[in-house]
Amino acid sequence: MPKIVDHDQRKIQIAEATWKVIVDEGLENATVRKVAEKAGLSVGSLRHYFATQSELLQFSMELVTERVNQRVQSGSYQGAPMDIAIQALGEVLPLDAERKIEMEVWFVFTARTLVDEKLRQLSERTFEEMHDGMSNVLIFLQQSNLLCADIDIDLEISRLHAMIDGMAIHHLLYPAKFPYQKMIDTLKYHIQSITKR
Amino acid sequence: MPKIVDHDQRKIQIAEATWKVIVDEGLENATVRKVAEKAGLSVGSLRHYFATQSELLQFSMELVTERVNQRVQSGSYQGAPMDIAIQALGEVLPLDAERKIEMEVWFVFTARTLVDEKLRQLSERTFEEMHDGMSNVLIFLQQSNLLCADIDIDLEISRLHAMIDGMAIHHLLYPAKFPYQKMIDTLKYHIQSITKR
Repeated sequence: MPKIVDHDQRKIQIAEATWKVIVDEGLENATVRKVAEKAGLSVGSLRHYFATQSELLQFSMELVTERVNQRVQSGSYQGAPMDIAIQALGEVLPLDAERKIEMEVWFVFTARTLVDEKLRQLSERTFEEMHDGMSNVLIFLQQSNLLCADIDIDLEISRLHAMIDGMAIHHLLYPAKFPYQKMIDTLKYHIQSITKR
Repeated sequence: MPKIVDHDQRKIQIAEATWKVIVDEGLENATVRKVAEKAGLSVGSLRHYFATQSELLQFSMELVTERVNQRVQSGSYQGAPMDIAIQALGEVLPLDAERKIEMEVWFVFTARTLVDEKLRQLSERTFEEMHDGMSNVLIFLQQSNLLCADIDIDLEISRLHAMIDGMAIHHLLYPAKFPYQKMIDTLKYHIQSITKR
């Protein structure tokens, strides 16, 4: 196996260990030492891949966005345009264990940017990518001639983005009060409300 | 002044010092020692009001909800029912410095509940109170005979709640990308979309 692949795989393995530490113990405990321990590496080996904690956290957060993008791009969504839109939006909702851990990392990381200016820039990029994703879904519905005529596309993007992030947080934190099926029903209800009958 | 008032005022002063520490340095730094320092009290004095850090955090978080409730109840909202609804919803959006600090405390606190089970129960109560608040606004519009006929009130509550929390977070974290006016416009657009033309 070429060394470059091995190197990248090791970085991903370390990032996933970072996710586990963040989810189990909080971001403030995601130190190089703790992550090395979780990944079964020495601190020296880990520093070979990530010289600083900041680099480690940055890569770990970027991996969340990358995974979402990969799923969206490789997604073989089935059905009518409205079903495709709902499946694509589901990629950023905590629908399964894999997506739940990604959302938790994103949420803890995002809250941390309030008190850590260094992380803010990365968090802003994630916000923009999500915003573009919402835009793509709505434009796809528009091009499929499904959106209602009186829609303000710019405000619809803001509304959808806020709703998706809010629902993700509500289901993640209060699954008994905002269960999976209600999240899906609310999403479908919203998409139906902006599309033609 | 009766001693009881003095006691309560001191607790509020300590809670507000706790907010400042949370917003400036993160929840993990909101220790009894740090908060005492910020409030200009000895650790011993502070422990007279809050025996444990857990009590301190709980009271500080409850004060956020109480302040919102106070504002809603004492709110002398002006105008047509739709304007009243928008003003009431504005109480839980980061529209000014006071509400911004409350939202930041709520957000940091909520993210923390992911890794701290003890705080989860309190966070769930806040979720329920917000949910009831959304419900009250929508029922008020319905009783004013303004809601569209084809509305599913239960899903509308979930949708509004998710949207409000999402918008609060987006404006709090990315004020340049999701500015004040866009937050207000998105809220008005949403309320218009569920009310009769």
